[in-house]
Amino acid sequence: MTPEAPYIFSGSSNEPLAKSIADYLNVPLRPTRIEKFSNDTLRLQLGESVRNKDVYIVQSLTSPVHRHIMELLMMLDIARSGDARRVTAVIPYYAYGRSDKKDAPRICITAKLLARMIETSGASRVIAMTLHSPQTHGFFDVPLDHLHSLRVLADHFKQKDLADTVVVSPDVGYAKQATKLAYALNLPLAIGSKMRLGDTEVEISTVLGSGGPTAKRAIVIDDEVATGGTMVELVHVMQKLGTHEFYLACTHGLFTGNATDRLNALDCVQEIVCTDTVYAPAAMDRLPKLRVESVASIFGDAIRCNNQGKSVGDLFAFWSKNMPPDTSLG
Amino acid sequence: MTPEAPYIFSGSSNEPLAKSIADYLNVPLRPTRIEKFSNDTLRLQLGESVRNKDVYIVQSLTSPVHRHIMELLMMLDIARSGDARRVTAVIPYYAYGRSDKKDAPRICITAKLLARMIETSGASRVIAMTLHSPQTHGFFDVPLDHLHSLRVLADHFKQKDLADTVVVSPDVGYAKQATKLAYALNLPLAIGSKMRLGDTEVEISTVLGSGGPTAKRAIVIDDEVATGGTMVELVHVMQKLGTHEFYLACTHGLFTGNATDRLNALDCVQEIVCTDTVYAPAAMDRLPKLRVESVASIFGDAIRCNNQGKSVGDLFAFWSKNMPPDTSLG
Amino acid sequence: MTPEAPYIFSGSSNEPLAKSIADYLNVPLRPTRIEKFSNDTLRLQLGESVRNKDVYIVQSLTSPVHRHIMELLMMLDIARSGDARRVTAVIPYYAYGRSDKKDAPRICITAKLLARMIETSGASRVIAMTLHSPQTHGFFDVPLDHLHSLRVLADHFKQKDLADTVVVSPDVGYAKQATKLAYALNLPLAIGSKMRLGDTEVEISTVLGSGGPTAKRAIVIDDEVATGGTMVELVHVMQKLGTHEFYLACTHGLFTGNATDRLNALDCVQEIVCTDTVYAPAAMDRLPKLRVESVASIFGDAIRCNNQGKSVGDLFAFWSKNMPPDTSLG
Amino acid sequence: MTPEAPYIFSGSSNEPLAKSIADYLNVPLRPTRIEKFSNDTLRLQLGESVRNKDVYIVQSLTSPVHRHIMELLMMLDIARSGDARRVTAVIPYYAYGRSDKKDAPRICITAKLLARMIETSGASRVIAMTLHSPQTHGFFDVPLDHLHSLRVLADHFKQKDLADTVVVSPDVGYAKQATKLAYALNLPLAIGSKMRLGDTEVEISTVLGSGGPTAKRAIVIDDEVATGGTMVELVHVMQKLGTHEFYLACTHGLFTGNATDRLNALDCVQEIVCTDTVYAPAAMDRLPKLRVESVASIFGDAIRCNNQGKSVGDLFAFWSKNMPPDTSLG
Amino acid sequence: MTPEAPYIFSGSSNEPLAKSIADYLNVPLRPTRIEKFSNDTLRLQLGESVRNKDVYIVQSLTSPVHRHIMELLMMLDIARSGDARRVTAVIPYYAYGRSDKKDAPRICITAKLLARMIETSGASRVIAMTLHSPQTHGFFDVPLDHLHSLRVLADHFKQKDLADTVVVSPDVGYAKQATKLAYALNLPLAIGSKMRLGDTEVEISTVLGSGGPTAKRAIVIDDEVATGGTMVELVHVMQKLGTHEFYLACTHGLFTGNATDRLNALDCVQEIVCTDTVYAPAAMDRLPKLRVESVASIFGDAIRCNNQGKSVGDLFAFWSKNMPPDTSLG
Amino acid sequence: MTPEAPYIFSGSSNEPLAKSIADYLNVPLRPTRIEKFSNDTLRLQLGESVRNKDVYIVQSLTSPVHRHIMELLMMLDIARSGDARRVTAVIPYYAYGRSDKKDAPRICITAKLLARMIETSGASRVIAMTLHSPQTHGFFDVPLDHLHSLRVLADHFKQKDLADTVVVSPDVGYAKQATKLAYALNLPLAIGSKMRLGDTEVEISTVLGSGGPTAKRAIVIDDEVATGGTMVELVHVMQKLGTHEFYLACTHGLFTGNATDRLNALDCVQEIVCTDTVYAPAAMDRLPKLRVESVASIFGDAIRCNNQGKSVGDLFAFWSKNMPPDTSLG
Repeated sequence: MTPEAPYIFSGSSNEPLAKSIADYLNVPLRPTRIEKFSNDTLRLQLGESVRNKDVYIVQSLTSPVHRHIMELLMMLDIARSGDARRVTAVIPYYAYGRSDKKDAPRICITAKLLARMIETSGASRVIAMTLHSPQTHGFFDVPLDHLHSLRVLADHFKQKDLADTVVVSPDVGYAKQATKLAYALNLPLAIGSKMRLGDTEVEISTVLGSGGPTAKRAIVIDDEVATGGTMVELVHVMQKLGTHEFYLACTHGLFTGNATDRLNALDCVQEIVCTDTVYAPAAMDRLPKLRVESVASIFGDAIRCNNQGKSVGDLFAFWSKNMPPDTSLG
Repeated sequence: MTPEAPYIFSGSSNEPLAKSIADYLNVPLRPTRIEKFSNDTLRLQLGESVRNKDVYIVQSLTSPVHRHIMELLMMLDIARSGDARRVTAVIPYYAYGRSDKKDAPRICITAKLLARMIETSGASRVIAMTLHSPQTHGFFDVPLDHLHSLRVLADHFKQKDLADTVVVSPDVGYAKQATKLAYALNLPLAIGSKMRLGDTEVEISTVLGSGGPTAKRAIVIDDEVATGGTMVELVHVMQKLGTHEFYLACTHGLFTGNATDRLNALDCVQEIVCTDTVYAPAAMDRLPKLRVESVASIFGDAIRCNNQGKSVGDLFAFWSKNMPPDTSLG
Repeated sequence: MTPEAPYIFSGSSNEPLAKSIADYLNVPLRPTRIEKFSNDTLRLQLGESVRNKDVYIVQSLTSPVHRHIMELLMMLDIARSGDARRVTAVIPYYAYGRSDKKDAPRICITAKLLARMIETSGASRVIAMTLHSPQTHGFFDVPLDHLHSLRVLADHFKQKDLADTVVVSPDVGYAKQATKLAYALNLPLAIGSKMRLGDTEVEISTVLGSGGPTAKRAIVIDDEVATGGTMVELVHVMQKLGTHEFYLACTHGLFTGNATDRLNALDCVQEIVCTDTVYAPAAMDRLPKLRVESVASIFGDAIRCNNQGKSVGDLFAFWSKNMPPDTSLG
Repeated sequence: MTPEAPYIFSGSSNEPLAKSIADYLNVPLRPTRIEKFSNDTLRLQLGESVRNKDVYIVQSLTSPVHRHIMELLMMLDIARSGDARRVTAVIPYYAYGRSDKKDAPRICITAKLLARMIETSGASRVIAMTLHSPQTHGFFDVPLDHLHSLRVLADHFKQKDLADTVVVSPDVGYAKQATKLAYALNLPLAIGSKMRLGDTEVEISTVLGSGGPTAKRAIVIDDEVATGGTMVELVHVMQKLGTHEFYLACTHGLFTGNATDRLNALDCVQEIVCTDTVYAPAAMDRLPKLRVESVASIFGDAIRCNNQGKSVGDLFAFWSKNMPPDTSLG
Repeated sequence: MTPEAPYIFSGSSNEPLAKSIADYLNVPLRPTRIEKFSNDTLRLQLGESVRNKDVYIVQSLTSPVHRHIMELLMMLDIARSGDARRVTAVIPYYAYGRSDKKDAPRICITAKLLARMIETSGASRVIAMTLHSPQTHGFFDVPLDHLHSLRVLADHFKQKDLADTVVVSPDVGYAKQATKLAYALNLPLAIGSKMRLGDTEVEISTVLGSGGPTAKRAIVIDDEVATGGTMVELVHVMQKLGTHEFYLACTHGLFTGNATDRLNALDCVQEIVCTDTVYAPAAMDRLPKLRVESVASIFGDAIRCNNQGKSVGDLFAFWSKNMPPDTSLG
Repeated sequence: MTPEAPYIFSGSSNEPLAKSIADYLNVPLRPTRIEKFSNDTLRLQLGESVRNKDVYIVQSLTSPVHRHIMELLMMLDIARSGDARRVTAVIPYYAYGRSDKKDAPRICITAKLLARMIETSGASRVIAMTLHSPQTHGFFDVPLDHLHSLRVLADHFKQKDLADTVVVSPDVGYAKQATKLAYALNLPLAIGSKMRLGDTEVEISTVLGSGGPTAKRAIVIDDEVATGGTMVELVHVMQKLGTHEFYLACTHGLFTGNATDRLNALDCVQEIVCTDTVYAPAAMDRLPKLRVESVASIFGDAIRCNNQGKSVGDLFAFWSKNMPPDTSLG
């Protein structure tokens, strides 16, 4: 029995990625009609019947965040009430990832609230990439595939000269993922001790790791770059320690605020690498050192596994089989 | 046993109305701290403990609609998870009211979806005003008080010279409410036969009603004025029929698109009257004929009834007791 | 992969229609055993295993309404707990359609309550025909296919002499559907201005529409005929305006109270046409002018689409493709 | 803090009992307006605001069972959506009590389905009396007070000459309750070995118990009397064993089918005693030996305990404290 | 279309039975990795991807009951969140079966609570065997197949000399099942009148049934044997009545407390027969007369029917077709 | 209006703490009757009516973890179905805290599963202390008060000679809490870089922080001590760096495996301090250096705030008001 092909629809946040995923899977991107009325409300229509189909709604929750959230919820609701067999929310960039705990009284764990909204609207499954904290997985009641972009980033850096190079995680929270990149590139790992001081200011006090701080070159890897403050601080700290060539890499290239100006000002940076989870044409224009690697194949593979009932975990066999379960500081 | 006073918080959409409601009830408007980060996400914090309190979150779902929706959902979630005794969403203007049916395949009944979001986020009750269709009530599972602004509008017009005046409903859908205004003012009623032709274009083909079409003056009353197209068309039709003085009245004064220009161009209009369910400072500046009547007392009375366990219906005894249950065309 | 055939069961309200649907689909009507005990309770048994089957429970919610509701709920519960793959409630006539709003305090939006009962009992989908208001769709959380009978009614009237004939909707609420019939028959449309005055009394004050009121013949079309009061009033009004030949048509022929006597007394009526959504053998006996057109093919097509995962909307391509989205008064 | 008085409303099934309960509690029975339309549907309106009130809806699920069920569900829904503080369904007679298991494939555990309907409609608590099986309690997710009528039955029989008398349970299932009556009257207990053979036929094969079968007088006690078949059979069996004077007692006197004729034919029966959980004026007329004892005080006490936050169990302290937890055959 | 084979996993409570079921179905028992940490918590991992698979989790809720419950809940949760197509809890022995009612105030209907836990954790269906009361079925909202072991017990006894033998149910509650065994073996039935006096003490007062009490041999059949008290008492009572050869049979052989000593002390017992729903290697060692018959084929057949969408009821056609629906006392 | 006093019940895991909390609040600890049957199942009974009471169920989820979980779930269910006004689960030690993410495929986020079980069983609120990760808060849908023990630990250490002392967090994850202790004691902070290598083995590679590593004395503070491995390693690392006097402190003193032997072997440890969230009489006997500080007052204050509708946050005003929101490395 051959399963029917996945039906892929896209919200307005990142249609280029949705198109790439559909192309990778060799299926059409199904049309979605989105109208905005004078009173700021939306009217969405899925352009094809979804009855008994395996539907995937692709939407990155980037700025304007709340309109994109509403589009996603509406599309999920349409698919469910249109009697789709399964409805999967494909969320390359999940907003409100840092709102995952109550670090002050009477605030909202918005990452959880958003998860409930997505489920209530009709998602029977979710596919996401590089969530801010692994616990966010537990905010969902429906099955969630948590993908990672390391495969494409590793492939990118394998083509570089990696002599006397260290992989650096800006903080301990991301160290586990950075370790995997270091392992794949056969490089040592260093970790910054980041103390976040607000939304825009960040101070990196030191960098740890045997081989790292004294390396000539550094690949700094983080989950997302927003204002770029963390990256800029880490580069400054490491420059003082002797590193003078930098590659900055992340999954989610938001480049908000004056990130592009800040990053352009760093002459020691050879290249900035991000993926296409966030569609940011302005940043692409203004950051000449930016290289965008597509994660369409990773999402495509996950969708194919879902559609055909195969293990998504097998996609990442390289990482899970070849690496020791616990890795020490480089 | 004296019930504890209501705790009123306001989102960012219409803090002046929330303040008026609190003033009317002689309670403080409790502080809410709203921050927006560079990546367009929000952080909200209720400024006082809500534990075991009777909490009211006031938020009009006006433009920017989706940010205001998210604020509401987050505030409801904070109140619920902060262990409020009851959490009431007070929604002076409910967005997506016209998205109450599937008049095309694979669209969203967004008024229903929004109701579910509000309930899922933590509202144990809802207070709304002049919903687009009465069936919207049935989209909610939690108790809903459906308020109307007619009391303040009637009080406003009672001070006018109402000789040879007719109350006009632009279409049959709103006729039931218009009838109540006509009854309160002891005036005849006329009804336009509106055929909506799109989001911006509207054609009014005729106006029905014994005394209405030939009257010298008309009070045109509708639930909301968005682009103003319906009002403008109706005025043009009635001018041809001999009416030459107009009062335009509505509950929700959205004044979107080029509404202010269109309405300013109508010399025959003496006054435009709306309420403060929508906070529209720009319209107030640009519409010199605009009079805004506050519905703070209506919301205040409803909140007091809720808080003290009294019937909200009694507030409207005037309407329900003095009027025949079915009223004929004027 | 060929989907398995639909499994169709019938409650006791309209087994003839269920049988016609099954015949149309060339599948057997599966047996249901219904016993009534001396204490008025029921015992129902589905006569065949439904494990992993695509089950359709056909039940019209006609008088005795509450017994028929209970039968439906019990059959849905049996199918669900019998591990059917999908359970679809097929409800040719939905009761309590007019209880869709709170037009008085402390009454029940019973159309919503009933929707929740149907879902709670086990319906994973619903197929209904000509609901009283389009908003009723939003009372359901599960997918709902809202069918219309216009195809069979149009086919019926196409065989008549339609010279100097107008299609008349008794009120504005049904005008949208009546427009479709007028369009299909290439006839003008007229609309009555109905003011409902109670359960049994109705007054039609006038009839609007350019070509309509002066036509020689009228096809009056409504969603349902209960006591017949609306129809009788409209005929009287139009007779005074000069129309002297009438066809009365509706989807749901309930013919309650003294409807048959009232309608028989109208000599100017040539024919009364309804569909078989309501099984009313007594009315058939007593109304010699009654013609009952079967909607079995419409339900059958919808079930086939559901069963095979095809778009139900495509069934109505004629209506949706050939008609302008907004139509003006005839 | 004095809790507010309970608000008691009654459906149409047993208003006399509801009135008695209200009288016992010295509170008014609040008005309910029930209309039936020509199409068999109902319109219910609670006659007073229930906002923040402690509401009790009294409804026995007697014939016409399904209409009475619908009334109950509608009244619960009205009370909940009218923002009552708590809504308690008071169900003196619960229908479908015997449908508590699947003793055949593809039938409905209707006692469970009904429980879900009651909860979904808005009951936050339930008060019931003498459910058919104690496991039915577990079908409810909301708190349930399971009352028993033994107090009034014991008081009734204490006034009789009880020399050489045995209390008889028609079957083992009811023995536990019968034991309590025997204990309260200081009488031995006997148990029939009933084998139910259908809805109308019943065969009692024998009667067990040391003192019982040879007693001169018997008080036969069961949960309900429907067709009376069980009682008649038991009387016949015991007559052969030497008993020649009978009192027949039950909680729920349904007296369906030809029960009155059957029971009237038993000359050896001195008295038939039931309670007023079922309102059966016809039976009262036709059964001259019938004595109806009111359980209004039991329901009243339970409602008072609920309203005032006291233990309902304490009401039955006599039974629970004075009796051994396990009792042997008399 | 050939359905994919069932995926069977086993908790730690009864892996031998799970293995037998898998062998019977000719599918592998999929690996489960269970670790226990020093703080008594568990870590479970399903050893193969379950995406889109038809998953069966086999777990008997035997001692240590609460650890086994937790394992079951965790495995269900893993399977659901791993996106299994369907997740069936296969529970050969269901714990807390006797906690099915509130026979004292403020106790827990734990059989219901457990059902909710199982459903909340992710079971979309349940397969159980010989539940203590048939009403327990109604505690579940998901489809449940209630299997019985009588087929294997009957096959076992058919090979014996059954002259002058009676089948005995220790109490009326189990009589219905015992009747089926008697019918299958063409033997008369007797029933003990058991009065349970506590957890460890039991008194059997008498044995009823025409042919039974005076028979030479007895097959005593019960749902479970825990401390063995019921069985021992019944044997003593029947010995006094003249029976001197006993076969003790049950579905669930728990053999708790000093059951093995008690049963070994009964010389008149020829054989003790139970099934492998409970894995009790210690009892097997210490009870030389014990014969364990496997119910793997019954579970296997039920799983196959579920997996292939066939009626489980057909498996028991022998019982349901060949027996009268109501059977009288032997 | 004076709220009624809280009703406190205790499971079997930590009755001494429950008693201390009740004593602190000057209310009785209400009786709970817990029986264990021979088949390992439990029967629990709350000893007093909870109708309309504000109920608190105190249970630490310590070993035997699964029995204690089941007790908690049963007690919550009893309280809810006994119609308590509110039911609060008070969980001094929450089990499965480390199972808060999927760091391997097909494992269970058991901390989330447990949260759902607790809510499903009837908890309307939860009070917990020092959860392993702050994101665990988001696993709960009901309000949760997350308490911390730092107040009592700070009070304990304030009485010591704190010259040349550093507060040490074994890893970055706990640094935020450790910072608060350092701040309260006016001491510098150091952080270990822990790399967990398994359940029993732990390696501390280094210790960071300006003043820390070279201090003479260290107060090592962690959330829990299980096998003690982390503490032992950290002591060894710091000894090499020159520290020679240690105080080991934690909230949850589990002392599993051979923790007592390991800790007793450390001569340089002056004192081990934990709280009474875990009842560990064996550890108390075998660890002569152990000091147990009671958190009864912290739980008591939180319960009082809940019961009286006051802010729990105010309890911790010292911490929240006096400290900068972000603190740098000491």
